[in-house]
Amino acid sequence: MEIYFASDYAEGAHPKILERLFEINLEKNPGYGLDIYCESARQKIREACACSNADIYFLVGGTQTNQTVIDAMLPRYAGVLATETGHVSVHEAGAIEFTGHKVLPLSSHDGKIDAADIRRWLLAFYADGNHDHMVFPGMVYISHPTEYGTLYAKDELIGIRDVCNEYKIPLYLDGARLGYGLACPSADVTLKDIAALTDVFYIGGTKVGALFGEAVVFTRHNAPDHFITIAKQHGALLAKGWLLGIQFETLFSDGLYEQLGRNAVMQADMIRKALQDKGYHIHMASPTNQIFLELDDQRLEDLQRHVAVSFWEKTDRGHTVVRLATSWATTDAQVSELLRHL
Amino acid sequence: MEIYFASDYAEGAHPKILERLFEINLEKNPGYGLDIYCESARQKIREACACSNADIYFLVGGTQTNQTVIDAMLPRYAGVLATETGHVSVHEAGAIEFTGHKVLPLSSHDGKIDAADIRRWLLAFYADGNHDHMVFPGMVYISHPTEYGTLYAKDELIGIRDVCNEYKIPLYLDGARLGYGLACPSADVTLKDIAALTDVFYIGGTKVGALFGEAVVFTRHNAPDHFITIAKQHGALLAKGWLLGIQFETLFSDGLYEQLGRNAVMQADMIRKALQDKGYHIHMASPTNQIFLELDDQRLEDLQRHVAVSFWEKTDRGHTVVRLATSWATTDAQVSELLRHL
Amino acid sequence: MEIYFASDYAEGAHPKILERLFEINLEKNPGYGLDIYCESARQKIREACACSNADIYFLVGGTQTNQTVIDAMLPRYAGVLATETGHVSVHEAGAIEFTGHKVLPLSSHDGKIDAADIRRWLLAFYADGNHDHMVFPGMVYISHPTEYGTLYAKDELIGIRDVCNEYKIPLYLDGARLGYGLACPSADVTLKDIAALTDVFYIGGTKVGALFGEAVVFTRHNAPDHFITIAKQHGALLAKGWLLGIQFETLFSDGLYEQLGRNAVMQADMIRKALQDKGYHIHMASPTNQIFLELDDQRLEDLQRHVAVSFWEKTDRGHTVVRLATSWATTDAQVSELLRHL
Amino acid sequence: MEIYFASDYAEGAHPKILERLFEINLEKNPGYGLDIYCESARQKIREACACSNADIYFLVGGTQTNQTVIDAMLPRYAGVLATETGHVSVHEAGAIEFTGHKVLPLSSHDGKIDAADIRRWLLAFYADGNHDHMVFPGMVYISHPTEYGTLYAKDELIGIRDVCNEYKIPLYLDGARLGYGLACPSADVTLKDIAALTDVFYIGGTKVGALFGEAVVFTRHNAPDHFITIAKQHGALLAKGWLLGIQFETLFSDGLYEQLGRNAVMQADMIRKALQDKGYHIHMASPTNQIFLELDDQRLEDLQRHVAVSFWEKTDRGHTVVRLATSWATTDAQVSELLRHL
Repeated sequence: MEIYFASDYAEGAHPKILERLFEINLEKNPGYGLDIYCESARQKIREACACSNADIYFLVGGTQTNQTVIDAMLPRYAGVLATETGHVSVHEAGAIEFTGHKVLPLSSHDGKIDAADIRRWLLAFYADGNHDHMVFPGMVYISHPTEYGTLYAKDELIGIRDVCNEYKIPLYLDGARLGYGLACPSADVTLKDIAALTDVFYIGGTKVGALFGEAVVFTRHNAPDHFITIAKQHGALLAKGWLLGIQFETLFSDGLYEQLGRNAVMQADMIRKALQDKGYHIHMASPTNQIFLELDDQRLEDLQRHVAVSFWEKTDRGHTVVRLATSWATTDAQVSELLRHL
Repeated sequence: MEIYFASDYAEGAHPKILERLFEINLEKNPGYGLDIYCESARQKIREACACSNADIYFLVGGTQTNQTVIDAMLPRYAGVLATETGHVSVHEAGAIEFTGHKVLPLSSHDGKIDAADIRRWLLAFYADGNHDHMVFPGMVYISHPTEYGTLYAKDELIGIRDVCNEYKIPLYLDGARLGYGLACPSADVTLKDIAALTDVFYIGGTKVGALFGEAVVFTRHNAPDHFITIAKQHGALLAKGWLLGIQFETLFSDGLYEQLGRNAVMQADMIRKALQDKGYHIHMASPTNQIFLELDDQRLEDLQRHVAVSFWEKTDRGHTVVRLATSWATTDAQVSELLRHL
Repeated sequence: MEIYFASDYAEGAHPKILERLFEINLEKNPGYGLDIYCESARQKIREACACSNADIYFLVGGTQTNQTVIDAMLPRYAGVLATETGHVSVHEAGAIEFTGHKVLPLSSHDGKIDAADIRRWLLAFYADGNHDHMVFPGMVYISHPTEYGTLYAKDELIGIRDVCNEYKIPLYLDGARLGYGLACPSADVTLKDIAALTDVFYIGGTKVGALFGEAVVFTRHNAPDHFITIAKQHGALLAKGWLLGIQFETLFSDGLYEQLGRNAVMQADMIRKALQDKGYHIHMASPTNQIFLELDDQRLEDLQRHVAVSFWEKTDRGHTVVRLATSWATTDAQVSELLRHL
Repeated sequence: MEIYFASDYAEGAHPKILERLFEINLEKNPGYGLDIYCESARQKIREACACSNADIYFLVGGTQTNQTVIDAMLPRYAGVLATETGHVSVHEAGAIEFTGHKVLPLSSHDGKIDAADIRRWLLAFYADGNHDHMVFPGMVYISHPTEYGTLYAKDELIGIRDVCNEYKIPLYLDGARLGYGLACPSADVTLKDIAALTDVFYIGGTKVGALFGEAVVFTRHNAPDHFITIAKQHGALLAKGWLLGIQFETLFSDGLYEQLGRNAVMQADMIRKALQDKGYHIHMASPTNQIFLELDDQRLEDLQRHVAVSFWEKTDRGHTVVRLATSWATTDAQVSELLRHL
């Protein structure tokens, strides 16, 4: 029988969320996020972020959120700076370009952007006599954790914030896996830090305990005008908005979001330790819920008879990098079973 | 205490759907619609449509579905013909135009398009010496039931199909409320008819018993190349696709979809009969789950103290048209309560 | 031999313009409108408009100008109000929708919009409880002369300005044939009026004496940020911008633009008078350089053996409306020849 | 007095072109490319390309042409492969992304793409298990000469053609400076080769003797359906199309296009030889009309007192690369004067 470590969005929702959905199922609620659950969720998130005037909206998925937020905030003549390995750069089927905006690629440092690289890029852009013929930089996009499971240190975030301030460019943080970043023992960045240091970010639900859903937080009462209408225009406005509200209300009650994050990281740490003990080659060190492992192709074939993992990339040596992901739902038994096959 | 007839998407899902979601909640499923529930739902829908080679995809919401399907099927130089009262024309915040395509308006006949109007439009278009400077007609969009709750007769659909054949233009049917159309005693159009007469249509789940979700049926194995990628690009690809699959599998098991449709129409018929008996002015006759009622403003104010209804439009005479909608979940008790206030 | 009255863009440029192009042909000029001729033309236009702080840009063609200006000025969630007969509504192949914005149609009154219609539309929009799901009104587009050759009276323009002020919506005037409107003896709207009453307009060159080119005037130093970059992004930035500058400098020297306008209108008046004397049926009265004539089909066939005219529309009675257009270059001899065939 | 080597689009047109424009100035011609001059130019270009069934259209500028052609040919889900230094990648203000398509960057080899790089990219793309979530490769874009003045060898072009055939992807060649590539003594690629090896290319007029204009050649009768309408929609359809036709008819009569190309290259060769003799550091060797010279900042400041050159990029050593460009109009006297200052 197969066990599954291919992704962190392979299960439904935390049981408490399903229970709440059951409880309110036949209640009549107004649509489009104007219900009491969305309002309550907003209030809880504002408190968790220490950000009392944040504008908060709930959307369904990550690519949709990136597309809608970035398009809503960029001026017509501008693009978004992101690492060349960022989700918006590679794995959104061109959803940003679809809205007419270029993703301006920066080098990846283990999935992260370096503040110095941003500054250098911006300096070069404005020093270039032809820059009126180029796409202007209109936003910085980072993900935390990154697509490689890595995390920004607080100093690094402050560094990026400083560049953004200098050039008056908003900073947007993609938190698809935010719970797994916040729960990481080695992390020094809190939710409040993120709210303080970014202009807008989203708190991922799909991968961290919800059935689906992402909470967009405009940290400074700075939501673009008519964001509801813009979301509708992008096909991103869920009719039954309370389905999102109730999920985030639950995640942000009694420390559930933190607790779910901790489980995934703890299980991943167990796997990491075992891999190290067994002498495996970790492709890229990452402290969160994703593990990037390089295997020779025979070894991989054997493993895949028992364990579902995710293809990441071919390396030159004819080896393959695969991703193992834990989640809020990963159990000790599943990890033990995995380790039996490694 | 207030009762709610403002819309047909005010509840969650039919309890059987929630049960199924609970049952499979901690199963691990592959994403993006590649799971067994989606496959099973596809098979059940193909059978219900008598359309064995249909390509079927599951998306989250109605505007999103219209936007993605229309953009995917239209050539660059073409727009979509629709009534001026169609959802795509009025209530999608310009989601079609957002993808670069014009909605070409036709007159509404109680929410419907007349085949003769389409033919006249097409004749005039091609007769116009300047038509190379105009948006080409690339698709016909209809909704069934329409936004006014009305239904096409089978003859009318055949008439539209004939024009589409003549001009080699695909016919797309928006079935956001399809269940309420199929269940209508006076309807002579079946699901199989729709599959036979359209190139693509969608079966609405959001308003007919699902938590959310719409099933897009390309009736002739004619899905656009790489529709998955196109959906992703529109932000419309749900990561946990099985959430959609399990819902439609459930709706298309044991006649649930039909049964849910029947309840809404039966309750609406009860209300219609009572309104007639009481001498109310029905603004537009409609046989499905929506009732359009014209009230003077004082009467409306009174009613709204007890019943949530939906604003439709102001009429010249200082009266207002409101919409009452029943749903799969409307109970006899709710209808009785409503009638007490009318 | 055939004579040509089918359009007003069938000739090259006024000889003075060609002479000037010859004179500076081998001079080296910087590109993209940063040359001395563009600057000089801007200064002359500012003077002619009594609008010392106008931002002025030169683009190549009318559809391109409408597309670029409208897209640059509209917020993401908004569309542009225009008559259903407006150039942007019908004859630009969906160029506005291509940029993601809906053209919101208003009734045509001989090609014009009525201020009362705009106000009624805006009132209804904001009174509609669902307007967050609709395209917001973000601009009013008018053409002067209209596509039907008609002109706004100054009072009518003031009326539209007032509505725009009330709702804080910019007013954009398409002046593709502006010269023929300004030169009209019955006109009471001057170039200075237009500059005072609109937020942005363009002065048509293509149809009024230039080889090609349109001068966009942002009347209140209100050009969108980085308009050069936006124009480039729309493919609308001419490398050799001075070709546009020198043409408008010439048109706005020694009263040339006015003089060219007068010729076309005078010749059209001669034709109108003759048609009246001969008992022809004028389809729509218009005081500028376009004449809309309804003919029975035999009569039209005869005429077209000698005279090139432009198809306008079929009328119900089996007759056809054709357009005759004069231009800055129409000669007395051409008019005499035309009249011989009428 | 200053001399100008900053670009190759600083002059008007070859005098023969202006003469022809004068000759036909008051003729009446139909618009939009339906005139006899466009038809004659098409015929001459077909002959020069040995490509009797080519579909040929005339547009105004380079960015506009790239945008319109690429958008017209790409499917919705696809992007265009280009070097990261290509014009579409850097200097078109995001005009390709504006139409919803990503530019997929490949490494630059002196401004060129290597066939092996393309194949490697395509192999990796289709080997990637997640490629349905990525932008599909839908076209290869190359420029010839490149933005760095370099040229493809015939073998290199054949290599790229072979990859395109394997993957059934069209090959598009941007010939903004094509005349300067064809005229180069060391070039082994002819116009006929280009027509045989590409699916579509354009012959640059703006930089090679025309006032403005680019001739798009779909080499295999493979113009996208309704290309005229698509061009209009992009704001790219010139009303007075014959202005483009007459220019290309003239350029392709009596060997003018070749002759103009030769002058620029010959003058550039003179400058290159002189620079070599004087020991200058050529930043990137290029055999056509552009010379990329690295100078220390003091030297550059001195030079710019007398000569207009174009900024290219800052190099790490605090030096600057500048571009000198000759053109069809560059005279011996101008070159002598330049050399006096070097």
